[in-house]
Amino acid sequence: MFFLFLLESRAICKYTCRKNKPELLKQGNLKESAMVDVWLEVEAHQYTAALEPVILECLIRPMFGRATDQKIVEDNLVKLKKVLEVYEARLSKCKYLAGDFLSLADLNHVSATACLATTPYASLFDAYPHVKAWWSGLMARPSVQKITALKKPYFQNSV
Amino acid sequence: MFFLFLLESRAICKYTCRKNKPELLKQGNLKESAMVDVWLEVEAHQYTAALEPVILECLIRPMFGRATDQKIVEDNLVKLKKVLEVYEARLSKCKYLAGDFLSLADLNHVSATACLATTPYASLFDAYPHVKAWWSGLMARPSVQKITALKKPYFQNSV
Repeated sequence: MFFLFLLESRAICKYTCRKNKPELLKQGNLKESAMVDVWLEVEAHQYTAALEPVILECLIRPMFGRATDQKIVEDNLVKLKKVLEVYEARLSKCKYLAGDFLSLADLNHVSATACLATTPYASLFDAYPHVKAWWSGLMARPSVQKITALKKPYFQNSV
Repeated sequence: MFFLFLLESRAICKYTCRKNKPELLKQGNLKESAMVDVWLEVEAHQYTAALEPVILECLIRPMFGRATDQKIVEDNLVKLKKVLEVYEARLSKCKYLAGDFLSLADLNHVSATACLATTPYASLFDAYPHVKAWWSGLMARPSVQKITALKKPYFQNSV
């Protein structure tokens, strides 16, 4: 038994996977683990980097009585749509981001994307049918339903 | 033999480590690999996130005849100094970021930090003696010298 104090949510997720669900990282398979890493990076530096400011402006700031900066929202929606075009192309070729297998790269999208449904941009995915189908599939998973249910007290409009 | 087309530099670095130097990721050791992941995240989302705009403004934009936005530089130097305080505390306790072993978390700092030496903020680390010693140690490694030598044609002031 050891005690380990970890920071950074993505590092914590990886640790949890390595310990309990190593198949979500595809470790041991050089090619598949590389594809998981690629899409983990895309999620962090492209997708969530564009989505987070939208959530901050539309959900978090109003919670504290602060106004939404619509310019920040619009600028980041432009970036996000470009990312979604890449996702649409990718998900038209394989079922999940890293390949035809579920991985942490998909699941790392859940937290921020679930918040999107409570913003005025809930229908954003409608223009990207493969992204929409991928997201619906993720949302239908019992584990994901459990997580999003925990968020409901914080975001009153159901996710 | 297989062909693999990879994007995202950090994912490429991980793939290369898994293939050729797995000890730099500490895979197989649950605790040490978690610490490597933590500091890989800190590098990407805290350290380089603050350093990159400084490099962009001080090096890249002038290369294309564009003016440096000093406000962006100053704002990000404030962020970077806060990160360096955390690094200083960490590196006063262990030799490298993830522990008393070199890992990809250290080496992922090389590319951006080597560029810092060619900006007006080359002496930034002087206020953080443990960070300075860690960086000098990294720079003394033959592999790092090889990499920084490759950058010299692009950044005329030697790194």
